Amino acid sequence: MDPNASGLAMRLAEAGQSHLLQFWNKLSPKEQAELTLDLQGMDFKEINGFFQKAMESSSSSKQEKMDSRMEPVPREVLGSVTRDRESLKDWELKGLHCISQSKVAVLLLAGGQGTRLGVSYPKGMYDVGLPSHKTLFQIQAERILKLQQLAEQKHKIKCCIPWYIMTSGRTMESTKEYFSRNNYFGLEKNNIIFFQQGMLPAMDYDGKIILENTGKLSMAPDGNGGLYRALRNQGIMEDMEQRGVEFIHVYCVDNILVKVADPSFIGFCVNKAADCGAKVVEKNNPTEAVGVVCKVDGHYQVVEYSEITLATAEKRSTDGRLMFNAGNVANHFFSFAFLKDIVQKYEPQLQHHVAQKKIPYVNAEGQLIKPDKPNGIKMEKFVFDIFQFAKTFVVYEVLREDEFSPLKNADSQDAKDTPTTARHALMSLHHRWVLNAGGHFIDENGRHVPAIPSLKDGTDLPIKCEISPLVSYGGEGLEALVKGREFHQNVMIDEKGVHELVKNGV
Amino acid sequence: MDPNASGLAMRLAEAGQSHLLQFWNKLSPKEQAELTLDLQGMDFKEINGFFQKAMESSSSSKQEKMDSRMEPVPREVLGSVTRDRESLKDWELKGLHCISQSKVAVLLLAGGQGTRLGVSYPKGMYDVGLPSHKTLFQIQAERILKLQQLAEQKHKIKCCIPWYIMTSGRTMESTKEYFSRNNYFGLEKNNIIFFQQGMLPAMDYDGKIILENTGKLSMAPDGNGGLYRALRNQGIMEDMEQRGVEFIHVYCVDNILVKVADPSFIGFCVNKAADCGAKVVEKNNPTEAVGVVCKVDGHYQVVEYSEITLATAEKRSTDGRLMFNAGNVANHFFSFAFLKDIVQKYEPQLQHHVAQKKIPYVNAEGQLIKPDKPNGIKMEKFVFDIFQFAKTFVVYEVLREDEFSPLKNADSQDAKDTPTTARHALMSLHHRWVLNAGGHFIDENGRHVPAIPSLKDGTDLPIKCEISPLVSYGGEGLEALVKGREFHQNVMIDEKGVHELVKNGV
Repeated sequence: MDPNASGLAMRLAEAGQSHLLQFWNKLSPKEQAELTLDLQGMDFKEINGFFQKAMESSSSSKQEKMDSRMEPVPREVLGSVTRDRESLKDWELKGLHCISQSKVAVLLLAGGQGTRLGVSYPKGMYDVGLPSHKTLFQIQAERILKLQQLAEQKHKIKCCIPWYIMTSGRTMESTKEYFSRNNYFGLEKNNIIFFQQGMLPAMDYDGKIILENTGKLSMAPDGNGGLYRALRNQGIMEDMEQRGVEFIHVYCVDNILVKVADPSFIGFCVNKAADCGAKVVEKNNPTEAVGVVCKVDGHYQVVEYSEITLATAEKRSTDGRLMFNAGNVANHFFSFAFLKDIVQKYEPQLQHHVAQKKIPYVNAEGQLIKPDKPNGIKMEKFVFDIFQFAKTFVVYEVLREDEFSPLKNADSQDAKDTPTTARHALMSLHHRWVLNAGGHFIDENGRHVPAIPSLKDGTDLPIKCEISPLVSYGGEGLEALVKGREFHQNVMIDEKGVHELVKNGV
Repeated sequence: MDPNASGLAMRLAEAGQSHLLQFWNKLSPKEQAELTLDLQGMDFKEINGFFQKAMESSSSSKQEKMDSRMEPVPREVLGSVTRDRESLKDWELKGLHCISQSKVAVLLLAGGQGTRLGVSYPKGMYDVGLPSHKTLFQIQAERILKLQQLAEQKHKIKCCIPWYIMTSGRTMESTKEYFSRNNYFGLEKNNIIFFQQGMLPAMDYDGKIILENTGKLSMAPDGNGGLYRALRNQGIMEDMEQRGVEFIHVYCVDNILVKVADPSFIGFCVNKAADCGAKVVEKNNPTEAVGVVCKVDGHYQVVEYSEITLATAEKRSTDGRLMFNAGNVANHFFSFAFLKDIVQKYEPQLQHHVAQKKIPYVNAEGQLIKPDKPNGIKMEKFVFDIFQFAKTFVVYEVLREDEFSPLKNADSQDAKDTPTTARHALMSLHHRWVLNAGGHFIDENGRHVPAIPSLKDGTDLPIKCEISPLVSYGGEGLEALVKGREFHQNVMIDEKGVHELVKNGV
């Protein structure tokens, strides 16, 4: 157990990380054992290499040079729900057919904890306060279930959409336990495959690993781009291959509107014979804080909003739209062959990005210090880092209010992307589904409620409408339930029927 | 003084409004005198007529019928800052020339109190918390002053932009006093002309005027469309004619970004020989709560968001844009000849709109009741009601983040259009002006601050930048002050120079 005897001290010394043992003699035997275990599993040479490369690439003043290298997404690789409406039905049918053949898998990035939300459990377990109190995980599970049913009904064939869920070391157990406790929300247990992304230590600006207490390293997940390493390390590609998966839809847990395995998106990508595709929403204002999909030096990538200059952000095409308007929403398509190439060949070429952070640390006296300005870095890869390797890359533009409302922050004044905005986005979408299916909403005096609500007098929606994914995946199939009917202002539609809820009595 | 003797009781009886005297015997002589004065000034027959017509037009189910009658703004009458960039300079020069000839006046709609903002004084006197603590009135005054200077410098001729300010009975005195106390913010007193819009009583659904206490009618301003009546009643058109005003820019007090007498907008309208023009911002999402400028039965008008069906709101042109996307921002151009025609000929044809409201009232026992649902109506005309009479109507599309950020509600969770959003909008615009003029912002470590801020970790802007209108009207003339310079995160630029402010020490 002695770090000198085991050779651990030598390895640390060679890597310049000996300070990690500075409190060794003050640790209890149990703490010593835990620290040893943590350290033995780590490849310090590799970590030091990550640090060096990441710092090098971040220190070059990328921003200025980027402007002349950026090109917008050409129209011919773009599919748009607003500009290509005549093709939508074809794409959807194509995607549904692929699903019916069990060729489509979904891959959920769910490694994050709800820290900014103010909770310590996985974000997917968050309840934004819908009438049903369904969590993000349940909503997504039910959408998958419904989509399987739609494909089966259409093609008279039994099918399955396997669901790969990437957790992190911190969220794995609670996530698995949550799904188990809820009987996998009606899905087959065997078709939900959990795997775990890697962790990396936080480092100070000199490349020293930071201790978060005297016997414990400060560790964090290695970014959603840790996906590719995790896919390899945990044999996920083999599982996909065995199942005959050909197309993978990757998305992030925090988007309450996500169209999991969206048949239109998949059908578009498959029709275009794409190996890689990105779903985007149109960026309308130059200063919107969203990364944009574009070409840099001829290769596709996402340029983050913090990297773009104002001059480039303000550039416009002749049609008046922003030139760089393909807003990234962490929602992607990969062919299996492409993903396999990435995992086997290209992953090691991906560089870590540097995120400067305020990282609590112990000082030489062993006291915990919480810095008030950034004192070190976390290293992360991003899921979109692999766009550059695509041979046939496509972009699919959808409407923000139909498909994108991420949950990031707790409710508070001026906060964006909160439980309230997520809840409103979902109920507003379902309100529109009812209207488009021929239903009406009336107020206490029997008058039609305007389709576009006025929110000036309060913070709550006048219409509270929630439709279970088990009833409708994307607004389809509601005519029989709502057409020509008048509803009061609180309606829930689930597999048992249409329920009018008593005001405030949900 | 006896209402029977004066004939007042008879007039009320004929108009079905005798209940207004029901507490007469309980009023003090002073209260009796005030009530008499109020009632004597009113034309009950006219008011009853307004009520009848307004209720008739509001009860017909307009919404359903509207869909087939609506047509979008044709491209040929549209000028757009994003799609017609090659013409912008010409329009601006044209407008500036008109200003230099003293042919341009501005007309401010400032009748509203800051009720929803939670203050009892005129909205224009509100301080949104800028570093300078300038109010909306001061910002607008200084923009006028600067624009006069720009026109004078360009054309070597003394000029004047008269400023007509419409207040209401409730805001007139405090507004005038405020301007006087502040020496008219450097403008000539004679070139600021205050006038007052009319008031109308609130009525219950049976057409009875509502008493807000035993001796006082419930009165409210007659809407911003009360403008036209007020222009006539108070001789404003004669004043304009004497001054040689040919073009009038009308706007609403609550927009902190308003480009008062915007030369580009005026130049565009004048070049198009328009008699009437509306500035709009693009509506990007179908459920955005903004009225849209469009044609109905061949005539231009604004269809409010509460009147539009979802199906129509979601309609798209072949280019993918919303078909009805000309979002009204209460910012208009009129030729003098057109406005004179309106005031003299068409104003009486305008119908009042009905706004259902919760109106406090006294019951038969004289007790004040505050209803919890709408119990009556206020009657209003809207400034845009006259679009229908235009012979050459044009639309000018500008960028929301450059020109429109209204102040409507107090700061609170989920509230839109607050002091915070107004302050951020102005400072964000001025931040962009500095960047576009070649200045840079650096953080405490000397690194460039990204142009697009991340607001995820807090509610405040990382860059606080305010530029006095006396230095720059629309971003011009800043190179000499900022080009190549690096600023820390709090900067104010005024006529005395560039000031870097100590953080939190404004």
